[in-house]
Amino acid sequence: MADEHDVTAANASLYEAFETADVDRMAALWDDADPEAVVCVHPGWPMLRGRDTVLRSWAAVMAGTDYIQFFLTDVRVSVLGDIAVVTCQENVLTEVTETSHGNAAVVATNVFVRRAGRWRAQVHHGSPVLGRLVDDESPDG
Amino acid sequence: MADEHDVTAANASLYEAFETADVDRMAALWDDADPEAVVCVHPGWPMLRGRDTVLRSWAAVMAGTDYIQFFLTDVRVSVLGDIAVVTCQENVLTEVTETSHGNAAVVATNVFVRRAGRWRAQVHHGSPVLGRLVDDESPDG
Repeated sequence: MADEHDVTAANASLYEAFETADVDRMAALWDDADPEAVVCVHPGWPMLRGRDTVLRSWAAVMAGTDYIQFFLTDVRVSVLGDIAVVTCQENVLTEVTETSHGNAAVVATNVFVRRAGRWRAQVHHGSPVLGRLVDDESPDG
Repeated sequence: MADEHDVTAANASLYEAFETADVDRMAALWDDADPEAVVCVHPGWPMLRGRDTVLRSWAAVMAGTDYIQFFLTDVRVSVLGDIAVVTCQENVLTEVTETSHGNAAVVATNVFVRRAGRWRAQVHHGSPVLGRLVDDESPDG
């Protein structure tokens, strides 16, 4: 359970770094032992590969975001050896104009690898939930 | 490299099962040792959890698809112990009408776990690439 706790904290840190637009903290959270294996998909974006490309994208996304806050729900952590998979729903609150806010639902799969006792992000895959929620009993309806 | 080969084959099988609408083959590909950890995100959908829910969704999606073909590109496999992460682009060709076809770009993160020597799917997360490709030097433009 200690592993699950640490992974949950690492996962939360990703979103806190984004909320505070903390480029250095964001960089420290991503794995640097195997930089080519780093992968990031921002919602609706193509897949970005490589630590440098991914960190540049975060810097740009954070620079372009005035206000954002995440409420993570349905967080599940699966640890197997030195790799952990987190799946969760990101309930996102953003500033649309100076006086109004919007919200969006994003679902995410995040993969962490343990390096010298620290969990570092290797994959972040966020995707938009489009349209109304689908009843899983009749998803083709 | 043998592991990477086997994982690549397991990943391809997921798409072949969908192309051929083979419900039994699809079911056999998904992990049944830890059914509650099974997760699937179809492009634009919310997150579905649990093996039964995920397999029902595949049955419905396949029943609602007349024709689909995948051309996987940019496939990267990362194996660490008994877990493997595959990231790839799905170039999807579907039938829009009887005489025309459409295509779509989807990016996917797929997680496999090794059970008794076989790689079984635990997570499939597909997401739509919306709009034009973003130049990663100016993604907020």
